[in-house]
Amino acid sequence: MDLQAFFKMSYGLYVLSAAFDGKQNGCIVNTVTQVTAEPPKATVAVSKQNLTTELIEQSGFFNAVPLTEKATMDLIGRFGFRSGREEDKFSGLEHGVDAHGVWYPTQNAAAMFSFKVIGKLDLDTHVLFVGKAVEAVKLSDDPVMTYDYYHRVKKGETPPNAPSYKKPEQKTGWRCKICGYVYEGEELPPDYICPICKKPASFFEKL
Amino acid sequence: MDLQAFFKMSYGLYVLSAAFDGKQNGCIVNTVTQVTAEPPKATVAVSKQNLTTELIEQSGFFNAVPLTEKATMDLIGRFGFRSGREEDKFSGLEHGVDAHGVWYPTQNAAAMFSFKVIGKLDLDTHVLFVGKAVEAVKLSDDPVMTYDYYHRVKKGETPPNAPSYKKPEQKTGWRCKICGYVYEGEELPPDYICPICKKPASFFEKL
Repeated sequence: MDLQAFFKMSYGLYVLSAAFDGKQNGCIVNTVTQVTAEPPKATVAVSKQNLTTELIEQSGFFNAVPLTEKATMDLIGRFGFRSGREEDKFSGLEHGVDAHGVWYPTQNAAAMFSFKVIGKLDLDTHVLFVGKAVEAVKLSDDPVMTYDYYHRVKKGETPPNAPSYKKPEQKTGWRCKICGYVYEGEELPPDYICPICKKPASFFEKL
Repeated sequence: MDLQAFFKMSYGLYVLSAAFDGKQNGCIVNTVTQVTAEPPKATVAVSKQNLTTELIEQSGFFNAVPLTEKATMDLIGRFGFRSGREEDKFSGLEHGVDAHGVWYPTQNAAAMFSFKVIGKLDLDTHVLFVGKAVEAVKLSDDPVMTYDYYHRVKKGETPPNAPSYKKPEQKTGWRCKICGYVYEGEELPPDYICPICKKPASFFEKL
């Protein structure tokens, strides 16, 4: 099986968010897909390890925001490479609130969708939720960020719990915990700044 | 609900094919999504009206080919705007055969995937199949066709039984049965040629 073949599938990049009992959280996914037209329903696959998955299970609702190409690696790093169990991902972030009280980021958001969960399927490592759209708003006409653009232009990485994760060739060096950028070299200069997301050397971990 | 918002979701364009009892057929979908990494599994949503859906139900297998930007409207029209109940869609077409005997188009194919159905979900108008990949081959490094590129550059239309179909504003004129292009005007000139897929006037129907 040639796992590189899977890079030929195309996706958008979304902030998937949910809320329960006062806790707001979100994560980055590429798996939002409209699956019926009338009424509009969508599916999303998300890792069982994610706090967002728990919040969707508990509340029965989720929100999805397709990002535009202008979305920063800082925004993607915040939702995609950190855990909501350890911090408040919405802290200090411009956000809207949907009809179900779920927060969603408004900067570099192409649209926002609020879904009610009407079905789910266990996929072992991931859960597939089926949502019926209850709210859909276009927020920007800027070009949307495709998963290809994220990898090719933004040089973004894929976290290990993503459905599209491929084990990388072994690199030696230091990896930025925010955006996944790898500095190749034994020693990371103390004044090093991540060229992708602009975080300092303290955000890097040794591979 | 702003249905235009749904255009902010990104997809590829795929030929989805299946075979049963000697009958080969395929259709165009935009809903192929990788949903787990280990093992690689994907979902696809497809209309219950499609012959391909029947063949997947009967055989338990499907094949998916992401198209490249070079794919012609003739190829897309062949699989996307005709019915396999009335004709052999593979007639005269270059094709490969996967491990389960399913034919797939090889021209302008970015990759090919063979899936074994391991689950399904009823979505009223559509069926969602969950497939475990049993074969994955990269076939081309040409850029893949996104659904956005299909609409924006190829001026392609969406058939009414697609999950992403939006009712068009009422137009008067003649619609090409192959690619959906609309000639606006009461009378279609008898020597008219579709500017998109190059079919003659006999392929147009009055709106």
